[in-house]
Amino acid sequence: MGEAPPPDKEHILCLIPLKVDPAILESIKKRHPNVDFTVREVGFDKTQALDPSIPDELLKEITILVTLFKFPKPELAKKLKLVHLVSAGADRLASVPLWKETEIPFTNSSGVHGPQIAEWVILQILSASHKERIMVEWQKKHIWGKGAELGVVRDGVGQRLGVLGYGAIGRQAGRVARALGLDVIAYTAGPRKTPESKKDRGYIVPGTGDPDGLIPSEWYSGLDKASLHTFLKADIDILLVAVPLTPETRHFLAAPEFEILGKKNAFILNIARGPIIQQDDLIAALKKPEAEGGLRGAALDVTDPEPLPADSELWDLKNVAITPHISGLGTLYAQRSFEILERNLTNLENGSKLINVVDRKKGY
Amino acid sequence: MGEAPPPDKEHILCLIPLKVDPAILESIKKRHPNVDFTVREVGFDKTQALDPSIPDELLKEITILVTLFKFPKPELAKKLKLVHLVSAGADRLASVPLWKETEIPFTNSSGVHGPQIAEWVILQILSASHKERIMVEWQKKHIWGKGAELGVVRDGVGQRLGVLGYGAIGRQAGRVARALGLDVIAYTAGPRKTPESKKDRGYIVPGTGDPDGLIPSEWYSGLDKASLHTFLKADIDILLVAVPLTPETRHFLAAPEFEILGKKNAFILNIARGPIIQQDDLIAALKKPEAEGGLRGAALDVTDPEPLPADSELWDLKNVAITPHISGLGTLYAQRSFEILERNLTNLENGSKLINVVDRKKGY
Repeated sequence: MGEAPPPDKEHILCLIPLKVDPAILESIKKRHPNVDFTVREVGFDKTQALDPSIPDELLKEITILVTLFKFPKPELAKKLKLVHLVSAGADRLASVPLWKETEIPFTNSSGVHGPQIAEWVILQILSASHKERIMVEWQKKHIWGKGAELGVVRDGVGQRLGVLGYGAIGRQAGRVARALGLDVIAYTAGPRKTPESKKDRGYIVPGTGDPDGLIPSEWYSGLDKASLHTFLKADIDILLVAVPLTPETRHFLAAPEFEILGKKNAFILNIARGPIIQQDDLIAALKKPEAEGGLRGAALDVTDPEPLPADSELWDLKNVAITPHISGLGTLYAQRSFEILERNLTNLENGSKLINVVDRKKGY
Repeated sequence: MGEAPPPDKEHILCLIPLKVDPAILESIKKRHPNVDFTVREVGFDKTQALDPSIPDELLKEITILVTLFKFPKPELAKKLKLVHLVSAGADRLASVPLWKETEIPFTNSSGVHGPQIAEWVILQILSASHKERIMVEWQKKHIWGKGAELGVVRDGVGQRLGVLGYGAIGRQAGRVARALGLDVIAYTAGPRKTPESKKDRGYIVPGTGDPDGLIPSEWYSGLDKASLHTFLKADIDILLVAVPLTPETRHFLAAPEFEILGKKNAFILNIARGPIIQQDDLIAALKKPEAEGGLRGAALDVTDPEPLPADSELWDLKNVAITPHISGLGTLYAQRSFEILERNLTNLENGSKLINVVDRKKGY
């Protein structure tokens, strides 16, 4: 057995709207001397077209693209063998020729957001149950308020969190919820009946998540409404929506689902995509009194459309928290996304399977 | 060996400012038919004197008192053999003759608050780090804000939580913090060098806490400032103050301690008692710029004095959250406190050691 051949030269083009700490790139180059980087910081606009200042000669040479919204035409990037998305969601790819017309593997940054977004989820659950907004008002007015005026405050011990979409974010939210004393149940697209199938095969921030899928007390699955209803009927107090947006999950939650959830006056969180929820139906369920089966409340980091129009009723509902699609933003984001890229550089060199590959059929 | 003798008749007098669900008492009586209850709901005032409507004849007969602030004179309650406090803190006992002049065991409700107060702790940590107050303002104004305007948002993975006072509350906060990916270090009054000594021997809400003391990566101890400083220098990002108020812990945290904590711009939470912190020194450390070693922020459920005067500077500091000593209030409070009482009824019947006994020397 001779020595392994030297790894292929890789030319990586980064077209992302994030400041990348040069130390991150240096650290990758140190471990992968076969790699060259070209970094162009781009804006946050969602047009696919590349800036005309990026010459065709450059595109011809690149082997790996790191991007969010920008994609070259397939015919201009013939050497391209990997596209790494710095987002977890991939629903915008439907209109991208590089995705539709080639077989080039796309990897996403699923897993990068786990801790950050799970923190947002826990924050919103606790902020609602502990009446945080009342206390913020008291502080503003210098009022040492009386506990009795807060109404019912109940810790989460023994409550049930349903995680619709038990991926990286759902697993980390489940981990923290269980530490808080909640019971966690999971929903996935396909069945996860074996220990092997319950594992998380994507990128996991070390020390977080549920790598082996040991946290949920029950697992449910399916892409049809009947399966969904079986899950929603399982005594859910809090529902976390963390499924990708696909044709099947568009309006996955609408009036019939809110009626089921209203039996326990569930609280709903959406950190995935706005259109998974039929928003007018949600508003109706949130306005319905709890005694009549209304929802206890909702926390939404995503809406339909975005930005949420200034005249939407959602803004002023007392039992609703809205944040402007920021739950995933954090200072460790870029570093972790490049950790995925680096693992895949190693996988390419070793001929191993890539992690975080987006499934062209499923679309996530 | 003959049959065990029937347990003593117990007459329990409840003098607490909480509504007690009759179902709780019924459930205790079902399992302990030797028990009779007399329940008098009292106000929240802190005077010790009993309401004159409580006759001496009743006091003469009671064997167990469940109370918060009300204590009969020792000479009037000669059959009393147990006092159960529905609070965790016992610092007010110093002026109570029943405490000072008798050997009657007092039990507290330490452990009851674990989940509720730990949720407050996690809520405040996340609310500060995720800039929750900015987002609440945006929502009020119907603004779909830009993430960049939030400034630095960083999840807690890899940060270090120092728990000053690793009791029931500290352990549950530590449990959740570790699930969030934080490293947890513990501080206790006495050393906990053996696995046995690390255990929590008090009441624990099932499914919560750190019963065996396995969570902290490091343990520190002492009641002197030198020991405290060794702990504070251990790279603490977030400090949770959860020690009882005793003569030793009064002003345990003052300017020199904030100077150490300021090196990492630590965030401080106090759920214990206001006077543990030298409040003017805290204000100075919170007003100091972070670049000069100021504290990142603070969340205070207790202040010195309480209520916090309306003209206190603390109210308006942008990096401070104040709540009016409500972190422990929750609908499951009474139920859990009576669970402790019930376990001790069993312990009395079996001649076993009582749980949650307040140490007359330590005062907690």
